[in-house]
Amino acid sequence: MGDLRINGERLWDSLMEIGKIGATPKGGVCRIALTDLDKQGRDLFVSWCKAAGCTVSIDKMGNIFARRQGRDPSLAPVMTGSHLDTQPTGGKFDGIYGVLAGLEVIRTLNDYNCETQAPIEVAVWTNEEGARFSPMIGSGVFTGRFTLEDGLSRQDKEGLTIDAELQRIGYAGDMGIRSYPVQAYFEAHIEQGPVLVDEGTTIGVVTGAQGQRWYDIHVTGVEAHAGPTPMSKRKDAMFGAASMIYEINRIGRRPEARSTVGYLNVHPNSRNVIPGAVSFSADLRHPDDTVLLQMDAEMRHLCQEIASAIGLGIEIKEVFYFPSTPFDQRAVATVRKGAQLHGYSHRDIVSGAGHDAVYIASVIPTAMIFVPCENGISHNESENADPKDLEAGCNILLHSLLSYANTP
Amino acid sequence: MGDLRINGERLWDSLMEIGKIGATPKGGVCRIALTDLDKQGRDLFVSWCKAAGCTVSIDKMGNIFARRQGRDPSLAPVMTGSHLDTQPTGGKFDGIYGVLAGLEVIRTLNDYNCETQAPIEVAVWTNEEGARFSPMIGSGVFTGRFTLEDGLSRQDKEGLTIDAELQRIGYAGDMGIRSYPVQAYFEAHIEQGPVLVDEGTTIGVVTGAQGQRWYDIHVTGVEAHAGPTPMSKRKDAMFGAASMIYEINRIGRRPEARSTVGYLNVHPNSRNVIPGAVSFSADLRHPDDTVLLQMDAEMRHLCQEIASAIGLGIEIKEVFYFPSTPFDQRAVATVRKGAQLHGYSHRDIVSGAGHDAVYIASVIPTAMIFVPCENGISHNESENADPKDLEAGCNILLHSLLSYANTP
Repeated sequence: MGDLRINGERLWDSLMEIGKIGATPKGGVCRIALTDLDKQGRDLFVSWCKAAGCTVSIDKMGNIFARRQGRDPSLAPVMTGSHLDTQPTGGKFDGIYGVLAGLEVIRTLNDYNCETQAPIEVAVWTNEEGARFSPMIGSGVFTGRFTLEDGLSRQDKEGLTIDAELQRIGYAGDMGIRSYPVQAYFEAHIEQGPVLVDEGTTIGVVTGAQGQRWYDIHVTGVEAHAGPTPMSKRKDAMFGAASMIYEINRIGRRPEARSTVGYLNVHPNSRNVIPGAVSFSADLRHPDDTVLLQMDAEMRHLCQEIASAIGLGIEIKEVFYFPSTPFDQRAVATVRKGAQLHGYSHRDIVSGAGHDAVYIASVIPTAMIFVPCENGISHNESENADPKDLEAGCNILLHSLLSYANTP
Repeated sequence: MGDLRINGERLWDSLMEIGKIGATPKGGVCRIALTDLDKQGRDLFVSWCKAAGCTVSIDKMGNIFARRQGRDPSLAPVMTGSHLDTQPTGGKFDGIYGVLAGLEVIRTLNDYNCETQAPIEVAVWTNEEGARFSPMIGSGVFTGRFTLEDGLSRQDKEGLTIDAELQRIGYAGDMGIRSYPVQAYFEAHIEQGPVLVDEGTTIGVVTGAQGQRWYDIHVTGVEAHAGPTPMSKRKDAMFGAASMIYEINRIGRRPEARSTVGYLNVHPNSRNVIPGAVSFSADLRHPDDTVLLQMDAEMRHLCQEIASAIGLGIEIKEVFYFPSTPFDQRAVATVRKGAQLHGYSHRDIVSGAGHDAVYIASVIPTAMIFVPCENGISHNESENADPKDLEAGCNILLHSLLSYANTP
């Protein structure tokens, strides 16, 4: 059974086929959660699963679970999956690859009439991207991070709820949330970063996800005329913000850390007026929560210091905290072992982005498999991946699911 | 005649009276150029001038000249003036003070039946503020910086021209542009900065105006996901821009210099996306053009260096250049002498803002008189000034106009 290989061409063809649903002129996909197009994508997936002999259940959050039965149906299943929804100008791989790699594993097992001890399930998590509703709601409710009521009541900009939209597209299931135990969860995904592709490494063995702290920082100075006001008398909110952004970048320059200022707004934003106020975001990430907390303290200290030196007011508000999530050691080792057995180049890597797997990891032993994507680009219509890499990742997924399904 | 003093109370009352035209609830004035309110302001001024025995001429740019005849009408007049238009949320003093101080000088000369050798004129320059049309058009056409055709054809956002609006409000005069010589020009103005008020100095002897160079700077990097992209692989346009803004501020920290980044725009401006592009303005000022050019070179060099180090693209476009304008030595000395004679505290100062006087200085020997304004604030409804300071500035204006009018 260790010699089983998935069918890379079939996987690619399925990706291209489902990519037609919501296809954009620039070669990307726009398949926003719980739209008619999302329904078409889900329907196609479900029909493929049924054709592959799976039974399909849908829970009250609209999460889909396609089960290939095991020799011992009483055993907890091994699960894989990801999401089918995309960004408004998304690509054909982010999320979809993880779902169809799971389906490809099942099809391969069927090809070889290969029974497993425990069942294998492929999950589709509702609304991962957050382009319409806030992100990762399906997996968030599954893991108890949000209540079902909270999840179902989330609204889009038009005030439509997830509940109403699930009903409308026929995916408001009746299965309870997480109504049976799961042995382990593996998710295959494009890296969405440049590390693997730049190194020419095939497999990223994802050891966990970075902790994240997001902030809104508001700096207030005194608006004044750019000409008559001497430098020494200025309370220049822009100069303060620029100095802080410079330091925030420096704080991120330690091993495995990230720091980003992606958003900035100036008031009054007029070329010959010294800015009276600047608001900006800060995003600090590190796989170790202790280091992340050090970065937090350093940022607060430096921003306060800069503000005091210039005579500015400053407010630092943490708006989001996501603790670092180390993945399950045995599950991670299984992925690494798979890469070694197949002779794929591989490296340990930490996920910088959020994924359904990061929530799932809080309740089920979890690991992820990353494959390179072209130029490290995702959330973009030009998102692309090498079929050989997708095939390799899917082979590792096969290996990992079999390892658990046959040695419960 | 050296003992003449203007009537500070009358000056203040006139300022308050004309301030009712376009008065805002917050105590400011909104009297945009060539609106019905501007017409009302002009009409009131003209009626006051006629009541004071002046003859009033209007040139083809709508500039108003109120003349108090001299003993020798063949002599070139001595001129003062400023503007009556305001910013949308402007105050009662910026511009208006210079016009009404001129009127107060004439009223004072009338009080004392004091004849001057040469005529004295008070000018109102059309559209100084630029809130509706581009700034300083009236004085710009007067001095030949713009042609009359150019000036008249300037449009507001609705496509209405200065020409049409001058006709509409009845201020399209028939006098030719600068059709007679002028001996000297003095303009009294609030400082619009904090130097005098912070020092407690009454009179700013304005020795000239700063040279200005304005730039649009566009920095391009590579948009990428804030999580998965390692710091070393980023081409972060925001980090680049912040580093440049920090350096631009430093460049302004030399004697008499100013540097300001007032405008900044980020793309895509999303908290978890590394910015792919940042555009910002830079405004460099110095009273010495040679130093200003050094600042220009330093800024270009440092911005290029920062861009190269991060791997960013950069485009630096100079969008405005105004050479430094030293005022006339005799005219400046006359103002300084006036302050000494009256025993007012005074200091030499360079104008950081643009004024009609800065254009006028290119064709007529010119000087300005600054008085403190509350907290250094202008272009704001809270703009305020001490009646005693306004009175002092007007006494210096009286002294300066008399010095020239009686010793041609």
